[in-house]
Amino acid sequence: MKSKLHFKSDFSTIDKTKLFNAIEKEKESIGYYNLPEQNIDEILEYANNFDENIDTVVVIGIGGSSLGAKAIYEFLKPSNNLKRKLYFFESTDPININELLEKIEILKSHIFVISKSGTTVETMAVFKYLYSLDSTNSRYTFITDSGSKLDKFANKIGSKVFNLPKNVGGRFSVLSVVGLLPLALGGVDIKALLDGALKIKESFFNDGYLKESLLNKALFYAKYHTTYNINCLFAYSQTLKYFAEWYVQLWGESLGKKQRHSAFNVGVTPIGLIGPKDQHSFLQLIMEGTRDKSITFIKIDDFHKSLKIPNISLPHLEELDILNDISFSDLISMQSESVLEALLNEGDIPIDEIIIDEVNEESIGELIYYYELLTSLVGELIDVDTYNQPGVEAGKIILKQKLQELGFRFQD
Amino acid sequence: MKSKLHFKSDFSTIDKTKLFNAIEKEKESIGYYNLPEQNIDEILEYANNFDENIDTVVVIGIGGSSLGAKAIYEFLKPSNNLKRKLYFFESTDPININELLEKIEILKSHIFVISKSGTTVETMAVFKYLYSLDSTNSRYTFITDSGSKLDKFANKIGSKVFNLPKNVGGRFSVLSVVGLLPLALGGVDIKALLDGALKIKESFFNDGYLKESLLNKALFYAKYHTTYNINCLFAYSQTLKYFAEWYVQLWGESLGKKQRHSAFNVGVTPIGLIGPKDQHSFLQLIMEGTRDKSITFIKIDDFHKSLKIPNISLPHLEELDILNDISFSDLISMQSESVLEALLNEGDIPIDEIIIDEVNEESIGELIYYYELLTSLVGELIDVDTYNQPGVEAGKIILKQKLQELGFRFQD
Repeated sequence: MKSKLHFKSDFSTIDKTKLFNAIEKEKESIGYYNLPEQNIDEILEYANNFDENIDTVVVIGIGGSSLGAKAIYEFLKPSNNLKRKLYFFESTDPININELLEKIEILKSHIFVISKSGTTVETMAVFKYLYSLDSTNSRYTFITDSGSKLDKFANKIGSKVFNLPKNVGGRFSVLSVVGLLPLALGGVDIKALLDGALKIKESFFNDGYLKESLLNKALFYAKYHTTYNINCLFAYSQTLKYFAEWYVQLWGESLGKKQRHSAFNVGVTPIGLIGPKDQHSFLQLIMEGTRDKSITFIKIDDFHKSLKIPNISLPHLEELDILNDISFSDLISMQSESVLEALLNEGDIPIDEIIIDEVNEESIGELIYYYELLTSLVGELIDVDTYNQPGVEAGKIILKQKLQELGFRFQD
Repeated sequence: MKSKLHFKSDFSTIDKTKLFNAIEKEKESIGYYNLPEQNIDEILEYANNFDENIDTVVVIGIGGSSLGAKAIYEFLKPSNNLKRKLYFFESTDPININELLEKIEILKSHIFVISKSGTTVETMAVFKYLYSLDSTNSRYTFITDSGSKLDKFANKIGSKVFNLPKNVGGRFSVLSVVGLLPLALGGVDIKALLDGALKIKESFFNDGYLKESLLNKALFYAKYHTTYNINCLFAYSQTLKYFAEWYVQLWGESLGKKQRHSAFNVGVTPIGLIGPKDQHSFLQLIMEGTRDKSITFIKIDDFHKSLKIPNISLPHLEELDILNDISFSDLISMQSESVLEALLNEGDIPIDEIIIDEVNEESIGELIYYYELLTSLVGELIDVDTYNQPGVEAGKIILKQKLQELGFRFQD
């Protein structure tokens, strides 16, 4: 993985040691930092000895309980020969539920129910539905906090349960059992995934090549968070579509907060874009709209070279012969470079680039840990508690009241 | 369709006649305004007499050439019994291309090639690829500007061609042949679609119930476009996922501009959210983040009541019995209301609501025209040319140079 900052990021007058030390200190209490070195023997044993007749892995989870595993699975799916298919129930929308039910065969599926708290309304509603279709307890594995009501339920019915490690929040949990278990069952090389994450961790904490660049990028985003209150991730590959969704949750939920030491609401709004498609949707706004956006381009160096534009010439359309014999992936590469150049020419848009060498487990592990670190750094700098999400509670309380009122009505 | 503004929108001291008259005047030259009254006999004849052996409609198009038809198709698909399946090639990403090729059977498909200019790189690259697989000219219908090179090519090979009406830009073209033709072939009632649009048009231009509300909403968005530089559409139905993508293009490309009478870049950034899924991703940022977002909730009054949460009680999880026997769609309704209430309680977030009665052609026609009008109004107020997109040209020119250099290299 390479990282290039195209904006001025000389914070030489700022003492970066303080920031670095704050993160060093967080590392002692915040669980995600140390996931790359965890012991995965139990997960590997579980996955390696799994029933070979099961060809489908179903995940019931929402937000942090599904976005990470989905991002990794969808990134690897088109190029790796994965062992099992993964499907994600991540909404109570009956349209999603029906669509997914059409695709899976329950008798050939293993179902993960993932809820940190154990009482996530959407997850539990969908679980109840699937459980009413098939209540074979060995078909289900539960991932939840130790001691939660779901933990107790799972133990009661004798299903397999895994607990989340301590102090790992949902949106930072992809490299814990939450992501690793379903992925390992799917055939993903989770050791390589963690190795990728470890590479970034070591580079940052042991004075490697990414340390300065990460600190400078975070300092820039934090210093100008009111000017550039929007951060766009512009990925030139369909494989990164769900990574972009994972990033949106990570960034939005971590940084959109009341400040710890002020009464003010802060935050930087994340937007995930996929090229070249979104060139025809969002690019005009970046190019000529308000200068309120920073842009990170993500490019994969080498992928799917085989599909080529055929060497045919069409009457009246000879100008398009320029495309002949070019692979679609080279075309996308050139499109990404062209858009990058055009935006750089504007001179006043903060742009940086991340270049991934290959589509594999190590690369996506790197990318995930890179973004987690960046989020922690910016959170520290804009003075928020990066790891909580108090803002979603109010709606849950109102929902519970509404459900209770409805329940009373039923009893009449 | 109902519309409720929850923010203060009393612009009684402002002379709204000037704004209204500007839009009245645009109506004479900008083509989209008058699409609801167009003659669709030719389209209906084309669709009604189509080969019954063709069961799949393929659209090759990007941006405005595909997003609109896709939005309508995906909205109607789960509830209507449509006649043919529609697939959209809207990227040069080899992963998309391969995925779609696996799903379609070319010999049972009819293929639309849609490019206003006739030389859109992505569309033409994919067309060349499909044409190399099957060059039966009757399998293709072309939609392009009259006199374009693609128009000439299509006439030369004897395929059917339809031209876009004058002064209808790509992102405003969904209710023209661009959207209507593939949709009619798919079995969508395009007459009802246009009737829905006409209802909104008449309501606005003939002093109907939406006029004041649209003017006030546009005035608010425009007046505070630097304060609330982000507009979120929060739709509580998976069926509106692609409508949200259509809105992102419409809003972003239309409003992200240099002002006509200043040197400044302006624009409001569109974000499409789908509930309840994005409650677990983006809601924290809306609730506690910077007050830089206006939010429009879209709710469908009545849909898919049949799928229910089963009436089962699970040990240790009895608190979730509160969900028993509720339909998933009622749960979503309550979730949407709860989040809306919680956000209104904050007191300083500009929120409004759009409520759609039913999932049908008329509703989505209404919604489309409503958003087109709103875009025109805000564009007029923030002093941009709503209908051009000069910012995307620079990247295209650089790409052409890169392709030419590569061509020269090949010739060596």
